[in-house]
Amino acid sequence: MVQIPRTPDPAPPAPLPVPTSTDVARRAGVSRATVSYVLNGSGTVRISEPTRRRVQQAARELGYVPHAAARALRSGHSRMVLVTAPSYPAGPIYHRFLDELQWALGRLGYTVVQHGTAPRHGARGPYSDDAARTWAELRPVAVLVPGSGLRPDAVDLLRRSGARAVLTLGPETVPGAHALLTDHEAVGHRAGRHLHDRGRRRIGVVVPTEPGHEVFATPRLAGVRRAVAGTTATVTELPLAYAEGDAARLAADWGPLGLDAVFAYNDEYAMLLMRALQDEGLGVPEDVALLGADDLMLGRLLRPRLSTVHLELPSGRDLAALVDRAVRDPAAPPERHTVLGAQVVHRESS
Amino acid sequence: MVQIPRTPDPAPPAPLPVPTSTDVARRAGVSRATVSYVLNGSGTVRISEPTRRRVQQAARELGYVPHAAARALRSGHSRMVLVTAPSYPAGPIYHRFLDELQWALGRLGYTVVQHGTAPRHGARGPYSDDAARTWAELRPVAVLVPGSGLRPDAVDLLRRSGARAVLTLGPETVPGAHALLTDHEAVGHRAGRHLHDRGRRRIGVVVPTEPGHEVFATPRLAGVRRAVAGTTATVTELPLAYAEGDAARLAADWGPLGLDAVFAYNDEYAMLLMRALQDEGLGVPEDVALLGADDLMLGRLLRPRLSTVHLELPSGRDLAALVDRAVRDPAAPPERHTVLGAQVVHRESS
Repeated sequence: MVQIPRTPDPAPPAPLPVPTSTDVARRAGVSRATVSYVLNGSGTVRISEPTRRRVQQAARELGYVPHAAARALRSGHSRMVLVTAPSYPAGPIYHRFLDELQWALGRLGYTVVQHGTAPRHGARGPYSDDAARTWAELRPVAVLVPGSGLRPDAVDLLRRSGARAVLTLGPETVPGAHALLTDHEAVGHRAGRHLHDRGRRRIGVVVPTEPGHEVFATPRLAGVRRAVAGTTATVTELPLAYAEGDAARLAADWGPLGLDAVFAYNDEYAMLLMRALQDEGLGVPEDVALLGADDLMLGRLLRPRLSTVHLELPSGRDLAALVDRAVRDPAAPPERHTVLGAQVVHRESS
Repeated sequence: MVQIPRTPDPAPPAPLPVPTSTDVARRAGVSRATVSYVLNGSGTVRISEPTRRRVQQAARELGYVPHAAARALRSGHSRMVLVTAPSYPAGPIYHRFLDELQWALGRLGYTVVQHGTAPRHGARGPYSDDAARTWAELRPVAVLVPGSGLRPDAVDLLRRSGARAVLTLGPETVPGAHALLTDHEAVGHRAGRHLHDRGRRRIGVVVPTEPGHEVFATPRLAGVRRAVAGTTATVTELPLAYAEGDAARLAADWGPLGLDAVFAYNDEYAMLLMRALQDEGLGVPEDVALLGADDLMLGRLLRPRLSTVHLELPSGRDLAALVDRAVRDPAAPPERHTVLGAQVVHRESS
């Protein structure tokens, strides 16, 4: 562990004064209201071009920056879109989606901030009142909650605190919130159908034991079951921790399980299981067909190359447009959209 | 691409009214000042327990939440710590560090928000004035900037806008900011020494061609060079994109390069290169020793298991304590700490 020592250097310089709009007004020789009109870009009052330039120059010279929250207090709402930390361990697909969303919202004049941490120590369940309260205190104009566990009273609290739109990105519909539904049952269904189509009849489905994954794992398992319902194929739940020892134990007990295929939850669990099965002398795909999900680069690099379910979150542009529409019309009824694309990419492991 | 359709449902319900502290005061039968004392937890004024309870109940019933920014305007500073998006593509080690930091700052009463996106379209270089201005508009009490490219005038702007502390987490010291120095030259030095100790004399160093990595790649390359300076060993820079075709081309031209070892920048590039080298019939480590960095799980699962440089960012607790100390004493001179731990984990590939 790297330690940060506790003894600072001596000789403190004086703290800098914080310039206010009054300072800018004084330096520019105009009223505070004029400063506010110029710097907050209000279009309702005409300011002459020389005055505008004088104010901007004074602000620059003083290092004055308008206060977003003060502006929000005056105008009644902010331009801040709050994205809460997802209730599940986020991977590269989510981070790419978030980058694109932030970029697209930025182009529409919103400032996106993320708040919150991945829960620690396995704590799960619905978001606490405290969480929703902290979000509300920031007075965002819109809140996007990825995952699950948002309660209707939290939506209420956010709406009452001035949020014009609350959106969820997950498997549930929460009353009062726009729902971007990610249908992971469909992901499991595609996976189950693919393995069944490849002639497999005893299908295992990995369910991670780490907390937070159940929001995806449970519907994926259900989807595999639906895919083979009415056939002779069986579906076996395989609880698995993301650790080599656990995967080795599972692979060592493979004989009695007698499975000829596994939908391994995602590419990382698939990689873990592939190594363990091969170490036990089992051939992939000869003895066991293996299918991941996410379509990460690492799957393509495995031997055999990993088959996977390619997932696609909504485009940041489309979602930004929905946020903007919802903010402009806060009284509009919540929209519901199914947004997750899922397609099997067949490579060598299945 | 999943499309979000543009036609919302009909029948809009009325928007909810936003309750104010005046509403709470009226309902509880007390003054607005009393509401503020109770809900903002100011300790300087004594409020009787029954009054306190009446205010809290009224706030609960109305769904009133204090406005963090309004409170900040009154008190002169916020409790918001702004963490800007790193200037480099962040991996799991960074995300873990950030989770821990947020948790630790939360325990000290700060609200952490993240702002910004990974730059798109390869745009790099120092942060723009606009970026620093957007951060300043949020009026954070402290700003942590991971990566590089923060300019001294941006630090000035943030300090003048009320930020009591600006901290960088990266390779540079920026005047006016606390510096948490991540010494990637030392990472390269460890890597170079390990490969030299293993008897390798023609060492390649992968330098990703994707933008953003240079902040790590350049000092790591320099560290490898220093490790073998004065010996007969040579160091060859290997530009490489994170794409199979590029890795295959590099491996196909291996003969003329005549390298017997590669420090592959990180575990993911190492995995990419391992597959390409093996596809060309080259043995790892017999013909080419391969060393990654980051100590990701995927490296342990490769065949052969990947040797790597295990990296450790500072503990979130220590860093949170430093932020808190800096906020309490904004006039204290900037601190400098070297915070990156680096240790070679020798497995099978080197």
